[in-house]
Amino acid sequence: MSAPMAEAKPPIDFYFDFISGYGYFASLRIEAIAARHGRRVDWHVMLLGVAVMKVMGLKPLLDTPLKGDYVKRDAARYLRRHGLVLARHVSDPMMDPRPAARAFCWVKRHHAGLAGAFVHAAYDRYWRLGRDLSLTDELLALAGPIGLDEQSLKLGLESEESRADLRDSVEAALARGVFGSPFTIIDGEPFWGSDRLEMADDWLSRDGW
Amino acid sequence: MSAPMAEAKPPIDFYFDFISGYGYFASLRIEAIAARHGRRVDWHVMLLGVAVMKVMGLKPLLDTPLKGDYVKRDAARYLRRHGLVLARHVSDPMMDPRPAARAFCWVKRHHAGLAGAFVHAAYDRYWRLGRDLSLTDELLALAGPIGLDEQSLKLGLESEESRADLRDSVEAALARGVFGSPFTIIDGEPFWGSDRLEMADDWLSRDGW
Repeated sequence: MSAPMAEAKPPIDFYFDFISGYGYFASLRIEAIAARHGRRVDWHVMLLGVAVMKVMGLKPLLDTPLKGDYVKRDAARYLRRHGLVLARHVSDPMMDPRPAARAFCWVKRHHAGLAGAFVHAAYDRYWRLGRDLSLTDELLALAGPIGLDEQSLKLGLESEESRADLRDSVEAALARGVFGSPFTIIDGEPFWGSDRLEMADDWLSRDGW
Repeated sequence: MSAPMAEAKPPIDFYFDFISGYGYFASLRIEAIAARHGRRVDWHVMLLGVAVMKVMGLKPLLDTPLKGDYVKRDAARYLRRHGLVLARHVSDPMMDPRPAARAFCWVKRHHAGLAGAFVHAAYDRYWRLGRDLSLTDELLALAGPIGLDEQSLKLGLESEESRADLRDSVEAALARGVFGSPFTIIDGEPFWGSDRLEMADDWLSRDGW
């Protein structure tokens, strides 16, 4: 029903933080869901440290009594179900997500067509391979395989422009009510969490309800 | 595949708080899911006020910045999608859930076969009809239609036995890691939230993974 008008439909807004395991899981599926309905994905980086801890005043997920244990188990069974094997566990210490987030902002501004490829490459390297992207060399290793120049990426992620872009991205996400990762907005309708992707798919099928 | 051995399979443990809208939504579906897999539902009352506020140290959902607005919207679209029309909104002031919870404990102990019927009647009266079950008359009105004696229920919910049963139920839920409503445990595997019922169904179909 949506195929003939595919180009005319607005993209799906997908918000993520690289330190979010559920964001990673959803990033692997969101483009297929979007494509089924003739949509593209517009990738937006956010920072859980700002949204959850500063604005909402909550503890990090893994430090929340009872819920922390549940999340470890829930993530593990998601991985088993989907045949994913990761070097990193959700309970491992998290990297500082800001260098990778700034790199993403630079890619999105200067090589918009590679934004999705960068997200996938960064999530894969952080979660599946277990590399720490707050280390410059690990982060720059993302460049070559997706056709970016390492030195340009290095200058870009350290630039005042990418710092400002990240601040703006975090602010814009908060202004739209985004408080978690993943968080998907479809034609103004918000869907929080990887466990709402089925509902988002249903929403797209019916053009809302 | 499960039908011939239906009687042999252990029940699904379903934890709920009457003040939980998502608990209500899930209570409407859990028996059908269980029945598809030859299971019964064992109903367990818990108190979000103890689990979320005291043990986890979190704010009530609706008082959490950003998430509160999301929950109102998410609940509203769930209702539209499922054709439910409720007199009570998730943002309305909540009743004290303890009298209804004690009444449930009394029913479960003395009329175990009516535990599910009581849960449905109480949820229906609180959410669909918008009645305050912390008022004795409103709570006792649940008795007749499901075949219970009002006076016995009144004495029961005020008894020391039901108070002790409720304390034990809340403690037992915490000891099993239950921190939300609804919360379903299937053969030891926990599923938090109404948005995990599909996964619970999948888990039952595959006998886990």
